[in-house]
Amino acid sequence: MDYTETKERRISTYQGVIINVALDQARLHNGSRVLREVVEHPGGVAVLPLDQEGYVYCVKQFRYPFQCHLLEIPAGKLEPGEDPRLCAERELSEETGFTAGRFVSLGEFYSSPGFSSEILHLYLALDLQEGEAHPDQDEFLDRIRIPLSELKERVLRGELHDGKTVVAVLKAAALLEENRV
Amino acid sequence: MDYTETKERRISTYQGVIINVALDQARLHNGSRVLREVVEHPGGVAVLPLDQEGYVYCVKQFRYPFQCHLLEIPAGKLEPGEDPRLCAERELSEETGFTAGRFVSLGEFYSSPGFSSEILHLYLALDLQEGEAHPDQDEFLDRIRIPLSELKERVLRGELHDGKTVVAVLKAAALLEENRV
Repeated sequence: MDYTETKERRISTYQGVIINVALDQARLHNGSRVLREVVEHPGGVAVLPLDQEGYVYCVKQFRYPFQCHLLEIPAGKLEPGEDPRLCAERELSEETGFTAGRFVSLGEFYSSPGFSSEILHLYLALDLQEGEAHPDQDEFLDRIRIPLSELKERVLRGELHDGKTVVAVLKAAALLEENRV
Repeated sequence: MDYTETKERRISTYQGVIINVALDQARLHNGSRVLREVVEHPGGVAVLPLDQEGYVYCVKQFRYPFQCHLLEIPAGKLEPGEDPRLCAERELSEETGFTAGRFVSLGEFYSSPGFSSEILHLYLALDLQEGEAHPDQDEFLDRIRIPLSELKERVLRGELHDGKTVVAVLKAAALLEENRV
């Protein structure tokens, strides 16, 4: 069935620092009206850097919304108009210092399609070359090297909580197990 | 290292319908000050209902932020103070009509920890008993039955985009392959 919801009018907007929020009145396929609230986000990329020995370079950083340090793969927001693949190269270099000989797309996903427009583009980075990390001025993180097999196990035990890291670890592990990368 | 960011003062808040936004001035561990913006969300649950024949009951519904229909597992927002497990039972029943003899936790994940406080609790629902679906008044969806193996393949090909569905499908498939459920 077609359940398309058509925007009738914008009721209000909130202009934030990273996100904006739009509140719309929308018309449902059956003619009734509802409010739809959308957090508008520029989207981002996340990169799983895997070395020849099967280790992944992760970062541990403080996440303000949860007031704790989280173990994640390197990631960052897209600049306006930026190509996701180039953004992935930039973020990998900034956060870990690595450049990669090969980027394999792991697809993209919508982090929370009920209320947010954020799209996350995932990459597997291979053939890594070490360099110097140069994170943003207000970005502090530790780099940690962990076997992909251990990350997968931690995900399956429910010990890793960052969505993009969970998706990238499980996808990369499944594709590698089937020799599809 | 400890990179804790301490809230110094709340600069502004936005009160939305489903979400609120808080803008804080925070102090970093090195003494410098930054703005931190947090989308406050009540959190939710998602349920992967798997029948004896290895099929999953999915729903297809319109997602306003992307202006398209998405294939997802049944899911919904937590009511204030609601137990995630009971919420999972409620959403499964509302959206598919099923009750489950067994709920297995697939853990929880943070959909977008850089800017949102949303936590999603995942469950695998087994021993399904058919009943009558009764979705919310402004909620329209089609129920679709798909083999878990096909869902996993679609995820690996990058054809499924809903984050919670991708995580639940890959986690459930990996745990079942290892006979851990």
